[in-house]
Amino acid sequence: MLTVHHLGKSQSERIVWLCEELQVPYELRCYTRDARTILAPAEYKALHPIGAAPVITDGELVLAESGAVIEYICAKHGGGRLRPGPDDPSFAPFLYWFHFANGTLQAAMGRLMILNRLNLPDDNPMLLAMRGRVDRAFAAVEARCGESDYLTGPVLTTADIMTLFSLTTMRYFLPYDLAPYPNIRAYLSRIAARPAYQRAMEKGDPGMALLLS
Amino acid sequence: MLTVHHLGKSQSERIVWLCEELQVPYELRCYTRDARTILAPAEYKALHPIGAAPVITDGELVLAESGAVIEYICAKHGGGRLRPGPDDPSFAPFLYWFHFANGTLQAAMGRLMILNRLNLPDDNPMLLAMRGRVDRAFAAVEARCGESDYLTGPVLTTADIMTLFSLTTMRYFLPYDLAPYPNIRAYLSRIAARPAYQRAMEKGDPGMALLLS
Repeated sequence: MLTVHHLGKSQSERIVWLCEELQVPYELRCYTRDARTILAPAEYKALHPIGAAPVITDGELVLAESGAVIEYICAKHGGGRLRPGPDDPSFAPFLYWFHFANGTLQAAMGRLMILNRLNLPDDNPMLLAMRGRVDRAFAAVEARCGESDYLTGPVLTTADIMTLFSLTTMRYFLPYDLAPYPNIRAYLSRIAARPAYQRAMEKGDPGMALLLS
Repeated sequence: MLTVHHLGKSQSERIVWLCEELQVPYELRCYTRDARTILAPAEYKALHPIGAAPVITDGELVLAESGAVIEYICAKHGGGRLRPGPDDPSFAPFLYWFHFANGTLQAAMGRLMILNRLNLPDDNPMLLAMRGRVDRAFAAVEARCGESDYLTGPVLTTADIMTLFSLTTMRYFLPYDLAPYPNIRAYLSRIAARPAYQRAMEKGDPGMALLLS
């Protein structure tokens, strides 16, 4: 049995959403962040040596890393759905946005988040450089969301499932105003209307508001 | 014609190495970092809106992001080699280490690199936390390199090609001593002995010493 170990307000929300989109059978186990440190609790860290969300178990297998978990579930349980093949014209954009999510967008936000916690002067050159990186990443998503309903084209793929966390839940940890990005806001509204996304958030993070602006 | 735009001492060394392992025809264009800022030159940043290495061009296509470029070249030019399929027992470990490279190891090193440039007190809690993350990531690679010749198993895959940059060239930007990691040092020696890796470094970064320790 596929088990999704979901840490609240974390990147493992991607995996809950994926399972709901694919409608594969899975068991959901929810864990809550420590109220003081906002870090994962000890029982979550014990699941895998790296101790970060997401983690799944499937028989003997314990697997971490969002990209790995998504590819594994799609291939082994989802019949290869939600991913265009090499002969599809959307193959290259799919690959780009799937890897952009953690390779550029989330990486830039993570760096800015830790700098923000250091109370640096507002004109610190490193702070300005990292803000610039985050702004360029959001500008790239904004441009793309003006070209098609989903990041890869007219249909949802796992590139959307990889990316969404940074546009929504990550902004609880790194506040970022979406007012200058109307295309991203429209994209978030399209995602919010999907029944599978609604089920995932109800099951995994009940009561949490989607940050649509 | 596939063209690899290689920025010296950067993550695009992965793509040069990949092309040499696959022995696919490609044109190599080399770019040098600005001597003062050590950033990419303007002509490299102009290749793609995000402005970071790697970038490839293939006909009309301009593609960035290491993971995307590697998957694209393997599928479109490499006949799907260097990647185990879903029925291979090494499928899950392959996915894990392929995504661990940028999702955990390089992400942790990037965060620590920018903190190091801020001249924080040596006991700064954020600095200590980020050092801990880098140490845990290296410990995970060390354990894995004691289990098999390559990260996925007995043969080289693109998981190795994704990971190597952080273990070698990245340490020019974030010095990190490999003395406590004998398995990683032995792994680096195995990579250094591969003719394709030697050709890639001779073509892309001539004169650069591989940081084996």
